[in-house]
Amino acid sequence: MADGLSIAGVAEQAGVSVATVSRVLNGHENVRPATRDKVLAAIDASGYRVNELARNLRTAESRLLLTMVPDVGNPFYAEIVRGIDSVARQHGYFMLLCDTGADPGRERSYFDLLRRRRADGAICLDPATIQQALGEASSALPWVACCEFDPAMGVPYVGIDNYRAAGDAVRYLLSRGHERIGLINSDVDYLYARQRQQGYLDALTEAGITPDERWCMNLNSLDYEAGASAAATLMLPPHAPSAIFAVSDTLAIGVIHGLRSVGKRVPDDVAVVGFDDISLAAQIDPPLTTIAQPMRELGETAARLLLQRLANPLANVPGVLLPHRLVIRGSA
Amino acid sequence: MADGLSIAGVAEQAGVSVATVSRVLNGHENVRPATRDKVLAAIDASGYRVNELARNLRTAESRLLLTMVPDVGNPFYAEIVRGIDSVARQHGYFMLLCDTGADPGRERSYFDLLRRRRADGAICLDPATIQQALGEASSALPWVACCEFDPAMGVPYVGIDNYRAAGDAVRYLLSRGHERIGLINSDVDYLYARQRQQGYLDALTEAGITPDERWCMNLNSLDYEAGASAAATLMLPPHAPSAIFAVSDTLAIGVIHGLRSVGKRVPDDVAVVGFDDISLAAQIDPPLTTIAQPMRELGETAARLLLQRLANPLANVPGVLLPHRLVIRGSA
Repeated sequence: MADGLSIAGVAEQAGVSVATVSRVLNGHENVRPATRDKVLAAIDASGYRVNELARNLRTAESRLLLTMVPDVGNPFYAEIVRGIDSVARQHGYFMLLCDTGADPGRERSYFDLLRRRRADGAICLDPATIQQALGEASSALPWVACCEFDPAMGVPYVGIDNYRAAGDAVRYLLSRGHERIGLINSDVDYLYARQRQQGYLDALTEAGITPDERWCMNLNSLDYEAGASAAATLMLPPHAPSAIFAVSDTLAIGVIHGLRSVGKRVPDDVAVVGFDDISLAAQIDPPLTTIAQPMRELGETAARLLLQRLANPLANVPGVLLPHRLVIRGSA
Repeated sequence: MADGLSIAGVAEQAGVSVATVSRVLNGHENVRPATRDKVLAAIDASGYRVNELARNLRTAESRLLLTMVPDVGNPFYAEIVRGIDSVARQHGYFMLLCDTGADPGRERSYFDLLRRRRADGAICLDPATIQQALGEASSALPWVACCEFDPAMGVPYVGIDNYRAAGDAVRYLLSRGHERIGLINSDVDYLYARQRQQGYLDALTEAGITPDERWCMNLNSLDYEAGASAAATLMLPPHAPSAIFAVSDTLAIGVIHGLRSVGKRVPDDVAVVGFDDISLAAQIDPPLTTIAQPMRELGETAARLLLQRLANPLANVPGVLLPHRLVIRGSA
């Protein structure tokens, strides 16, 4: 690498180590004045440009990966982040987490850190609509989409087959005799929300059931509270469903609480299926039946795809789909 | 500021904006070659040293604050992080989150980012023992301790009175007629764990009860699963307590699950009190009685203390204690 050679050349010329050159350029205190002067003289003599040296240093020393999540408080992301972090550290990178609040402006500022090479690469879990709003130029930056992805963007991605996973949840409820199945969904800014909705609708239609739009709700939050109040609304007669499929475990846990508050027992009065399989899902009463996503593996795979892209920016890094599975517990 | 003037001087000399000088030093592509040459000539002519300019740029443009948490998966930290983030953004800073896993080595690497001015400041929520292991030199760096703090370290801090809060939890259980009160505590690496343990012991002693060490457990995890298995252990006859105080809501939620799995009902057979008041606490069955920490305010205050310290590095930034409160729900 030409830039690498220039630092090494300066170090050789000055008779010091590369680390010492780096310390001088970084303005560290613990360099003797005589050494500093030798290094600066060698830089002058080298003819290398300040910005090339500075860029090289930054490139060589950043070792930072950013992970952008829409809500750091959702336990689903925490497990993915652990997977990213462990692979990053194995490869000598730091992983720093950015809470974007799914806000396009904040997303753009974090991408600026990439653009300005303050970080080496990024993994983005934000809504596909927000990823798309970054514009075409962003797809040349070293980043990977995780869980939320639009294959048409040309950015490497890892996720699951959301359409099929939602269908599996609905088919399980159908197999238990439910026909009036409600859907508590996320914001349609998320591609996964649109895919799961389609999976839900098609599974009902295939079973000969005409979906009733009064069974479906879209929420702009995955908080427990949002799930609780949506469940209470959905239970208003005369169209109350006998089962609810919620697209996240946090919503589903809220749903169980909301059903309890309107006097409905789970699963006797209403069956509930969640999505994600966060660790809490097994701990609540009743334990939650849910679609498990391989959260840790999603994070690990995203980190590996990013490292591949960093090692070889021009290579075609593939999209990866990981398997989901239905975990049957007590709530349905 | 001398460094600020040097960049401005170069800009004036070259007849370009400060932003253009910054772009050249940062190696941006979108600078015309002629402009770049003018800037580089002005840098040569200025006599300013490369490292001073580079340092100045870094200082002027970092705008990054780090928040170090021992476990990004604990919802307690998520709410604090939101408070930090909102104050940081109001003041034009980015907040990046570091999951240290309470590991001294990872902690030290993140502090290196501070030391090398890759970030402007940090907020640390890691165990006091790990903060202390950073050594004396670290206390000169721009950081603030949050929730976990040793006032003797001379680092600004914000937290609650853990000793008194634990006493309040125990006194509430005593007032409900409980005498055999178990404690499920965190790792004693955490100062808060030692303080809450002392609060627990003193409250029992003051009530004329000799604490039984078989009622106390220290865990190195705050996971739901850890709480569940600790509760099952604590319930083994003949020393089973009639009430359990767990030092985090995540543990307490696990405790309720663990009690259920050994056939004990909450609160009828065993009362449970948690600590933190995460949003989930109100959603589970039975809703959790707990000590509420002002999580969002803790984060906001930590960010403000850090910004004060950055604005005036020599000023004496005080330690702040915020009020806690007992929230009575159904579990005790």
